[in-house]
Amino acid sequence: MRNVDRFAISDWFKGLQDHICDEIASTDGKGVFEQELWQREGGGGGRTRIIQNANILEKGGVNYSEVHGVLPSRIADAMQVSGHDFFATGVSIVMHPFSPMVPIIHMNVRYFEVSSGEKWFGGGIDLTPIYIDKTQAAVFHRKLKEVCDRHHENYYAEFKQWADDYFYIKHRKETRGIGGIFFDRLQATEYISLSDRFEFVKQVGMLFSEIYTRLMQENKDIPYGKPEKLFQALRRGRYVEFNLVYDKGTKFGLDTDGRAESILMSLPPEAGWPYNYKPIAGSREEQTIDLLRKGVEWASADI
Amino acid sequence: MRNVDRFAISDWFKGLQDHICDEIASTDGKGVFEQELWQREGGGGGRTRIIQNANILEKGGVNYSEVHGVLPSRIADAMQVSGHDFFATGVSIVMHPFSPMVPIIHMNVRYFEVSSGEKWFGGGIDLTPIYIDKTQAAVFHRKLKEVCDRHHENYYAEFKQWADDYFYIKHRKETRGIGGIFFDRLQATEYISLSDRFEFVKQVGMLFSEIYTRLMQENKDIPYGKPEKLFQALRRGRYVEFNLVYDKGTKFGLDTDGRAESILMSLPPEAGWPYNYKPIAGSREEQTIDLLRKGVEWASADI
Repeated sequence: MRNVDRFAISDWFKGLQDHICDEIASTDGKGVFEQELWQREGGGGGRTRIIQNANILEKGGVNYSEVHGVLPSRIADAMQVSGHDFFATGVSIVMHPFSPMVPIIHMNVRYFEVSSGEKWFGGGIDLTPIYIDKTQAAVFHRKLKEVCDRHHENYYAEFKQWADDYFYIKHRKETRGIGGIFFDRLQATEYISLSDRFEFVKQVGMLFSEIYTRLMQENKDIPYGKPEKLFQALRRGRYVEFNLVYDKGTKFGLDTDGRAESILMSLPPEAGWPYNYKPIAGSREEQTIDLLRKGVEWASADI
Repeated sequence: MRNVDRFAISDWFKGLQDHICDEIASTDGKGVFEQELWQREGGGGGRTRIIQNANILEKGGVNYSEVHGVLPSRIADAMQVSGHDFFATGVSIVMHPFSPMVPIIHMNVRYFEVSSGEKWFGGGIDLTPIYIDKTQAAVFHRKLKEVCDRHHENYYAEFKQWADDYFYIKHRKETRGIGGIFFDRLQATEYISLSDRFEFVKQVGMLFSEIYTRLMQENKDIPYGKPEKLFQALRRGRYVEFNLVYDKGTKFGLDTDGRAESILMSLPPEAGWPYNYKPIAGSREEQTIDLLRKGVEWASADI
């Protein structure tokens, strides 16, 4: 498997972090990413890069990490792997723009290896518009589908469903946003090499800045006022609920005594919980909430 | 055991809800509590009472519930009880004032019964000042200690420690606030009747409005500006982290498909997560953060 060793993968992820930060900062036009290097006691470390109070972006993080060491048995059990040592590398991104007209976005791409020999890729991209624009939702899903289709005819359907199920706020009976794709444990099989899996993950990774810089540009000048900011606070509150109650990466990080600020950089700069919010019948707020459900075929022309 | 049956307890809690709402609304001076009645599919229901955008209070809830039915085996296991049916009643309160100079407060008093015969009381009060005032902290803890001391010489030390351990944000290595008392599974023993336990819980319940109306009055006119509001947003963010990541009542509620808005009424109206906040050396913010730790003897004169 040419070029698919942990070091090559880790290096590629590091380069992806550089690329994405450059593209995002240049589109934002004002902000720069501030870097913090951190080391993990048990082995490895990372580069946290944060942009705050910029032009379009209120708070965003593009984190790269490469960690390794002894796999706690509790986590090995939860993951259903038997290896004693592990190696994990990846890039995690969350962007919170000021404007309620620019969507929140999240991406993660990661590679995991255990000493028993298992190796796999995981990751995903999902979009959380405050107000859903169906055309932009279609474009977003079609781009994901294009990349998926290039690799396997089942990828998009499978990974889109997986995202619907994963990014779901069970206690609200709402999806977090319009989903996207989510995948995990993509190992080598008889038909698909680990190198093919890596190629797919690379293309997902490279799609990020293309998708998001466009969304930033298209939406940054749409006017909004106080009602939109209030709805944004509510939708950001739901984002907090998802991340703190359901997100496995967040739970894994907090359970393993990870660096709290790096893990929780995904939380919005501000959020709100007005009691028992009900949107006005027929409003754009209601239209969005009605669409926060599983199984919407966003990539299709008519929704 | 005179007057200690589930109906008497439940009635008393209902009366406590009335009493507290009256006292709080009258001290606030503007707000009224809006009531929503709800029924639980498996049996029972409750009265949610919410005050919003009042004079001193931005968002607060005083919830009474009495629920019963079949105990899900998963929950029976977690609770380590063998009963098939359960009965639970209690009052839960969280108050979020507008002013960062008025503390957030929480109280819960509850009674639980399982058909295998076990019966117990649980509950607690804890205070989360945005800025810690050591004199007010001492008064708060002394009042709790007085009530505890009237019932058992060990209660305060034991329940204060329990609160320190319970209201702890592990990933921040910070307590939620200045603690208070927390207790659970207070059953009848050879020396203490269930009626004595109930008497203790009643006195804890009756202490709430005495403590909080005083704190509202003492602090409502203290001036503050933007820096204090920003620090309040951060401290409210920590409150959200505790409630969504660690609080057992919240988890129990969400896991058992409880009414999300009633469970999450505990969340603040607004919260913020500025990245990697560091207080200025020697500031009041730093002084407060330094005191967010276990084992502070708040009731003592010198801290």
